[in-house]
Amino acid sequence: MKIPITKLRQKVLETLSKNFSSEETEKIAEYLLWADMSGNKTQGIIKLTGTSALQDVEPEHEMKIERDTKLSQLINAGKNPAPLVSQNATDVAIQKAKEHGFGIVGVHNIFSSTGAQAFYAEKIAKENFIGIVAARSPASVAVFGGIDPLFGTNPIGFSFPTTTDPIVFDMATSAMTWYGLVLASARGEKIPENMAIDKDGNPTLDPAEAMDGCLLPFDRGYKGAGIGMVIELLAGPLVGAAYGQVEGEWGALFMAIDPELLVDIDKFKASNSDLVQKIKASRKKNGAHEIRLPGERALCSRKEAEESGMVEVDDAILKQLGYI
Amino acid sequence: MKIPITKLRQKVLETLSKNFSSEETEKIAEYLLWADMSGNKTQGIIKLTGTSALQDVEPEHEMKIERDTKLSQLINAGKNPAPLVSQNATDVAIQKAKEHGFGIVGVHNIFSSTGAQAFYAEKIAKENFIGIVAARSPASVAVFGGIDPLFGTNPIGFSFPTTTDPIVFDMATSAMTWYGLVLASARGEKIPENMAIDKDGNPTLDPAEAMDGCLLPFDRGYKGAGIGMVIELLAGPLVGAAYGQVEGEWGALFMAIDPELLVDIDKFKASNSDLVQKIKASRKKNGAHEIRLPGERALCSRKEAEESGMVEVDDAILKQLGYI
Repeated sequence: MKIPITKLRQKVLETLSKNFSSEETEKIAEYLLWADMSGNKTQGIIKLTGTSALQDVEPEHEMKIERDTKLSQLINAGKNPAPLVSQNATDVAIQKAKEHGFGIVGVHNIFSSTGAQAFYAEKIAKENFIGIVAARSPASVAVFGGIDPLFGTNPIGFSFPTTTDPIVFDMATSAMTWYGLVLASARGEKIPENMAIDKDGNPTLDPAEAMDGCLLPFDRGYKGAGIGMVIELLAGPLVGAAYGQVEGEWGALFMAIDPELLVDIDKFKASNSDLVQKIKASRKKNGAHEIRLPGERALCSRKEAEESGMVEVDDAILKQLGYI
Repeated sequence: MKIPITKLRQKVLETLSKNFSSEETEKIAEYLLWADMSGNKTQGIIKLTGTSALQDVEPEHEMKIERDTKLSQLINAGKNPAPLVSQNATDVAIQKAKEHGFGIVGVHNIFSSTGAQAFYAEKIAKENFIGIVAARSPASVAVFGGIDPLFGTNPIGFSFPTTTDPIVFDMATSAMTWYGLVLASARGEKIPENMAIDKDGNPTLDPAEAMDGCLLPFDRGYKGAGIGMVIELLAGPLVGAAYGQVEGEWGALFMAIDPELLVDIDKFKASNSDLVQKIKASRKKNGAHEIRLPGERALCSRKEAEESGMVEVDDAILKQLGYI
């Protein structure tokens, strides 16, 4: 059903206030509502349900700064929830870029997935910086030629300021997400072909077998596996998180680069917008209605929600949370 | 045939000295020999043959520094040849990273392709930095859902120091390289299926039709096209090169990041090497003889050449250059 955003926000803040300060609840709520408004239902208020509901997360300790330089910060997240940790890291990267032209922030020991990389990347581009964000998760993807899980689904996000809305592109480097497996398993459904292999390396359509085995890289080839490896290195060893294994710490990396290191910001934004126009003006493949930029559908969905003041959320989730 | 590396180097230096200073010839020769020794024959001394042979390049002007900050430099390459320009840019990025922890160097107005990104990336990792290098080339790849060429074959390279040889991964973001089309066309051969479309958007096996049409992104999907777009932005608008078109300036970006911004270098190198061991120890797919890391085959080829002092080069090219 459609529910007023203001009402949903109020309810979410109440739910979160159980364990978090008002500043923290604001940050987490912002992420959850952004996701639901974007149509990204797996990252929205569904995160407040289930056995590891966000509001029940009990951090090990406060976030600790383990290294701090002009350009960088390393944070031990103390198993605080990812949307909170990641927004803090994003803010620090932006601040460093404002002061010195470049900011790089690493985080380890995060509670669960950093989620939609687009959210953090967009924040960075709205400050007129180039954003590059990446995260590693427990090993679930095979290396090229192998059948053991070695890399996480390892999402990456990029963002660029334009004269209007930023260009934001994010993707998982696996053929499908881990959550997709969880969902298919819970529903007793098969997964599509050519997504995963079982623990012996045979193709499988069974989500449970895939969870015991491996997901394939997004291109099913060595390039996708290579990009997955790069993210494993950037958001694993570089930030003091685990790597190449199922157990161990989740990690994430946030970079903000000031384009003025190389080009005037106005020129950069104008050129980026011009490229967007060229992309939108491309002749279309038979059957394609429109050339969409990465992230465009989510942006439209968000704008629609903002204009109407209403957001679509699953009735079952609202009931489960006692919101209706 | 196999030819002594010292002899080949001497010949290459002689050929290049026609138009370049001794320092410049050394740099260009280093790149060409590295490529031939790596088994990357399309980037080796073949570049000294043909109608746009490297030694015949007449630059418009000297390389000009257009912007210089603590962390960055923008260079107008004055149509100097790519291997020379790119090595200079790499050296500057390394120097900035040594001094400040991060170096980013943009180059535009380069003569032709920067070639093997792995070469520059490897140099950066050998200095104990993380390397990220990318280049844009004339538009030849379609956007997702489109049939007009908008992005170049846009290669990207990443590198990471380890306790032994760096991890180096580079790839074109197109399904095949432009040079692959040129070669197939020259030989009157067809290209493989699902690589390209003609100017009306129909699948084609004809390299000439593909050159008039578009190459597909490496994964034939929106993720690969998105990564191609990211590189178009990083090595186009950000560095003052062209973007989204066939004509106009080639551009490239070189970044060196000091891992010590976040982690002790010894720990980082040890963890990276440990991940390499985990990758090599992975159980193999049926039929796979060995799990190879990205760049491993090229590295083996280079080590073999170094140990034997000999490098394999096509007889026809050696004859054409008058080297035998």
